[in-house]
Amino acid sequence: MKKGEQTKNNILQTGARIIHQSGYNSTGIQEVLKSAGVPKGSFYFYFRNKQDFGLQLIDYYADFFYSRLDYYLDLKQETFLNRLRLFFAEFIQELENNKCQGGCPLGNLSQEMADIDEDFREKLNQIFLQIRGKIEYFLQESSKNKELSPEYDPGELAHFILNSWQGALLQMKVSKTVEPLKNFDRLIFETILNSRRQK
Amino acid sequence: MKKGEQTKNNILQTGARIIHQSGYNSTGIQEVLKSAGVPKGSFYFYFRNKQDFGLQLIDYYADFFYSRLDYYLDLKQETFLNRLRLFFAEFIQELENNKCQGGCPLGNLSQEMADIDEDFREKLNQIFLQIRGKIEYFLQESSKNKELSPEYDPGELAHFILNSWQGALLQMKVSKTVEPLKNFDRLIFETILNSRRQK
Repeated sequence: MKKGEQTKNNILQTGARIIHQSGYNSTGIQEVLKSAGVPKGSFYFYFRNKQDFGLQLIDYYADFFYSRLDYYLDLKQETFLNRLRLFFAEFIQELENNKCQGGCPLGNLSQEMADIDEDFREKLNQIFLQIRGKIEYFLQESSKNKELSPEYDPGELAHFILNSWQGALLQMKVSKTVEPLKNFDRLIFETILNSRRQK
Repeated sequence: MKKGEQTKNNILQTGARIIHQSGYNSTGIQEVLKSAGVPKGSFYFYFRNKQDFGLQLIDYYADFFYSRLDYYLDLKQETFLNRLRLFFAEFIQELENNKCQGGCPLGNLSQEMADIDEDFREKLNQIFLQIRGKIEYFLQESSKNKELSPEYDPGELAHFILNSWQGALLQMKVSKTVEPLKNFDRLIFETILNSRRQK
């Protein structure tokens, strides 16, 4: 990585952590740069303004989710439904270790920004469609392998699973337990999907 | 309703509308009182401070959801699963009419406040448990009537349905369509619950 890319990545990484904790509107650029140890002038070399930084941050978060989805998709010793289940299970474990702090950075930004900034909303919408597409791919493969009952349309189900997960994360924040996430795991993978396999 | 109760109710009703649109932290008490046409002194007669107002507002929102749940629970000509489905269908219709603005006031407050105010978090957690209990009651009755497959535990399922609905509302904000809500309706009531009835 070149020096310039390193600086940019450092700003994004630091911003990602702070904004995940405190939200976009409550976080000042100054705070991010101070924590990253980068002078203010450098910021405007990489980003037009705070909004541009926020939009690039969405891609930064998204790349993390894409690569993790790709990692689980490639676990060849597992069924496709189990690969998807393990993808969520890692987050459940991490959130349990982190005492339920933070939740999903993309879900948080959606709640905070979707009604007030149309560029954020459009960007987040695109990213969720991408993530949904990747979840759909696990389900299409499970469908081909007859792991998934033909009653389920992989696209519809991927949409439903992603939304249900986001809702479980919101309830995790309110209850300060991972029980909503474990409820999601049990209902989706044991009751709804698994038992259908035996039909 | 006595004059004092009317004034208090007027403040809560006006605050409920404004905070649903703009969020709790962005809304000033002054703005609520001006819009309600109530002098500032009156506010401190009914509420200790803004936080006390916010906590009472949660009850105000909750009462609305409780009474709507009770209304649908009492629709004797419908099956219990259909009564629950119709409860959600009315919100889907309203949100479609309102161009997907607002979402769930309790979900919004959760996202905004759960990590930063422990009194809000506890209050919201209690209210969601109450709402979940009411949804569970529809499902217990459907279970008794054999509308619901015995594989489903009504409490687990009520938890899951409430969380999935909250997640669908979040995705509605991002996509600015009611498609996530219709996806929730189809998956829960047609694919997951209805087809099991025929087992």
